[in-house]
Amino acid sequence: MAVGLQAPGRLHPVQGIRLAATRCGIKANSEVKDLALLEIGPDASVAAVFTRSHFCAAPVSLCKQHLAHTRSPRYLLINSGNANAATGKTGLDNARSCCRAIAETCAVEVEQVLPFSTGVIAEQLAVEPIVRAIPGLVGKLEADAWLAAAEAIMTTDTLPKAISVQLSIDNQRVTITGIAKGSGMIKPDMATMLTYVATDARIAQQELDDMLRLLVATSFNCITVDGDTSTNDSCVLIATGATGVDVDRNNAAFFAALTQLFEQLAQAIIRDAEGATKFVEITVEGAVSESDARVMAFTIAESPLVKTALFASDPNWGRFIMAIGRSPVEHIDVDRIDLFLGAVRLLHQGLPDPAYQESLGQAEMSRGEIAIRVNLNLGKASARIWTSDLSYEYVKINAEYRS
Amino acid sequence: MAVGLQAPGRLHPVQGIRLAATRCGIKANSEVKDLALLEIGPDASVAAVFTRSHFCAAPVSLCKQHLAHTRSPRYLLINSGNANAATGKTGLDNARSCCRAIAETCAVEVEQVLPFSTGVIAEQLAVEPIVRAIPGLVGKLEADAWLAAAEAIMTTDTLPKAISVQLSIDNQRVTITGIAKGSGMIKPDMATMLTYVATDARIAQQELDDMLRLLVATSFNCITVDGDTSTNDSCVLIATGATGVDVDRNNAAFFAALTQLFEQLAQAIIRDAEGATKFVEITVEGAVSESDARVMAFTIAESPLVKTALFASDPNWGRFIMAIGRSPVEHIDVDRIDLFLGAVRLLHQGLPDPAYQESLGQAEMSRGEIAIRVNLNLGKASARIWTSDLSYEYVKINAEYRS
Repeated sequence: MAVGLQAPGRLHPVQGIRLAATRCGIKANSEVKDLALLEIGPDASVAAVFTRSHFCAAPVSLCKQHLAHTRSPRYLLINSGNANAATGKTGLDNARSCCRAIAETCAVEVEQVLPFSTGVIAEQLAVEPIVRAIPGLVGKLEADAWLAAAEAIMTTDTLPKAISVQLSIDNQRVTITGIAKGSGMIKPDMATMLTYVATDARIAQQELDDMLRLLVATSFNCITVDGDTSTNDSCVLIATGATGVDVDRNNAAFFAALTQLFEQLAQAIIRDAEGATKFVEITVEGAVSESDARVMAFTIAESPLVKTALFASDPNWGRFIMAIGRSPVEHIDVDRIDLFLGAVRLLHQGLPDPAYQESLGQAEMSRGEIAIRVNLNLGKASARIWTSDLSYEYVKINAEYRS
Repeated sequence: MAVGLQAPGRLHPVQGIRLAATRCGIKANSEVKDLALLEIGPDASVAAVFTRSHFCAAPVSLCKQHLAHTRSPRYLLINSGNANAATGKTGLDNARSCCRAIAETCAVEVEQVLPFSTGVIAEQLAVEPIVRAIPGLVGKLEADAWLAAAEAIMTTDTLPKAISVQLSIDNQRVTITGIAKGSGMIKPDMATMLTYVATDARIAQQELDDMLRLLVATSFNCITVDGDTSTNDSCVLIATGATGVDVDRNNAAFFAALTQLFEQLAQAIIRDAEGATKFVEITVEGAVSESDARVMAFTIAESPLVKTALFASDPNWGRFIMAIGRSPVEHIDVDRIDLFLGAVRLLHQGLPDPAYQESLGQAEMSRGEIAIRVNLNLGKASARIWTSDLSYEYVKINAEYRS
C-alpha cells in the first residue's frame, strides 16, 4: 500500500562501483534475493553512520571495528532475512567469517569488508549459505546492478527504493545513485535501516564525514513509522572519485542534488511504511529551540491516536491538540499556538478558528498526502519530519511477520 | 474485549458521600448516562492531582483555581461526551456556569464546586442541558449510587470500573470506595482520565495530599495504553472523616488497602484498554535509577512492534531486545542483561539462553496475562508498569470513535 511511491526509474551506474545480488537461502521465500555485494574502487572515500541502539547488531559492531582499522573499505556485504542482532560472540564470529570469505576471494584485508544485516532479531546467522554464495556473487559483479541490490536488501518493503541523478560539474558528468530499505521498526537514530549512496565525484574524507552527518540530520533522522529504532540502522555514503571531479559542500548544485536524494530516499521509506495509507509531513515552527520543535513533531507523529485519526481520514484534530499538549518541550505558551491542516487553520492563538468548518478539515484529511503545521509563535527554530498512519494493515503485517 | 475484568462487585456507601447520575444529552447515544454529581460532607479533606498536559482542559484549570481558593470542595460535577479542552475563555466560562448552577441550587460557594469533563476535544461544551439536569440530579443524591456514577463517566470503556473495601480500625468499620474511567488516550501523568476515591476515615489535609502523590506514583502513573496523555486526567481522593476514625500512612492495614485499591483501579483501566486482548506487566529491575527503570519499561510498553507481537501471541522477543536497545536510559551494559517472559529466561547476560525453546516462549505468549521482566544487573532500582497489546480492534475503535 505504498503512498505515491513508484518503482525506481533508471539507475545510473556510478564509476568505481560494481554490484551483484543473489538468493543464498536465508529468507524462507524461495522467490526472492537475500544477499548483495557492493564493490568500491581503491581510491574512494567512505563515510558511515550507525544506529545508536544499545543492542546494536553484530555487523554494526564489526563495521565500526573495521572502519577504525581502515577508512578504505572495498566491499559491502549485505544480507536480508536475519539481523544478526542479540547474537553475542557467535554473531560477531559469524559476521567476521562472512567478511573473511570475501577477503580471501577478492584478495583484500578482512577489515576492508563491511558486513550489514537486516531481518529477524535474536537468531544466529547461517554462515554456510552465505559463504557458499560468495564466489558466484563476486563473479557477477557489474556496474549496472543497483536495482538488483536494492531488491536483495528488502524485508517488508513492497517496492525497492532507489534514486539516481546526474549533473554536470566542470563540464564533466557526475552521478549520484542511492538505495535504501526499510518500512517498519523505523525511527532511525543516526541513519535508517540500510542505505547506500555513491557518487563518482571525489570528496575528501573529513568533508564526506561532515556531509553525511548534515545529510542524515534532515533526511533519515526526520522520519518515523512507529518510533521503533532498529538494532541495525546503517547509512553509507561513498565518493569513488573515479571522475576526478572534486566537490565539497560549497558546490551548491552538487550538495543540493545530494540533499534532495537523501530526502527522497528517506521519504520513500515512509511512503512504503508498513500498512501506510497516508504520507504525512509534520512541521513545527516558531519554536525557541530546534530540539523543542523536533520533540513536538515526533510526539504528534508517533501518537497512536493521531495515527488512527489519519487512517480514518477523520478531521478529529482534538487529538493533534492532545499530542501538542503532552509534548515534553521546554518552551510553550498554548495561548500563542496556531495549528494548520494543509491550508486550513484549526487553531489561532490557542483557540479554535471561528472560520473553521468540518467540511474544510474533512477535505484535507481525505488526501493521500497530508500536512500538519504547528506555529508556536515563540522563536525562530523549526523542524520538519515525515510519518505514516496506523492502519489495520500495520497491525496485520506486524502480528504476522517476524522481524 | 476486557482482559480479566469483571463488572464491579458490591460498592459500599462511604459515610459523608452522596451521589447521583443521569442522562442530560451530551452523548449522542440516548441509552447512556453522561452526567454525575458527587456530594462531599462539610468536614472532609480532599486531595487532587491533574494532567500535566500543556493543553489542560478548561475544567482542569478551573479545578485548580477553585482548590487554590478553598480546600473544602462540596460537589464534584462530572460530564462525559465532551472534554471541554482547547475551548479557551468560552470553555472556562461554560465550566464556571455549570459550577454556578450547582452552587445556587445547593447554597454553597461556586469555588466549592469542582468540574470534570471527558470526551471529545476542541468542541464547546453545551451548558444548557447540564444546567437543566442539575435540579433533578441534586434531588436524587443518595449514598448508594457509586455504580451509577461509575457508569455515567464512561466513554469507550466497556465496563464500569469500581472497587470497594471495608476494614475495621479501632473496632470501627471504615470504607474505601473508588471509581475510575478510561481505556484510550491513557498514559496518565500525575493521574488518569478520571478517578474518584473516597473513605469515611479522617485524614489531615497535608497527609492526604502526600498520600495521594504516593498512591498515584505506583498506580495510575504506572499504566499506558498508547502513550497518549489526556488533556483531562484528574484523580481525586476524599476523606470525609464521617466515621471519626483518624488514620495516616502509619496505619499499615489502611494504607495497604488504599494502595491495593488504587493499583486495582489502574489495572482495571488496562484490562479494559481499547481493543486489548492481553494484560501485560513489565518489570525492569537491577537499574541504577528508578528513572532508568521507568523509561525502559515504558519504551517496551509503548513499542508498536512489541504490542503487535503480544497481540499475535508471537514469541518474537527480538522486538523486546529492539525496545530495550532503543530505550534512552543513562546506565546500561547489554552484556549483563537478563530477560524473562513469565518464568522463561530468554536472555542471560545479553545472550540468548541456550535452554530456550520456541515452545516455551509460545506457551507464555499465548496467555491472556503476560509478564515481561528485564534485569539490568547494575543497581537496585526497579519499576513495574502495566500495559495492553495493539490489536485490529484498537485501530477500529480509534478510527471510528471521535475522542
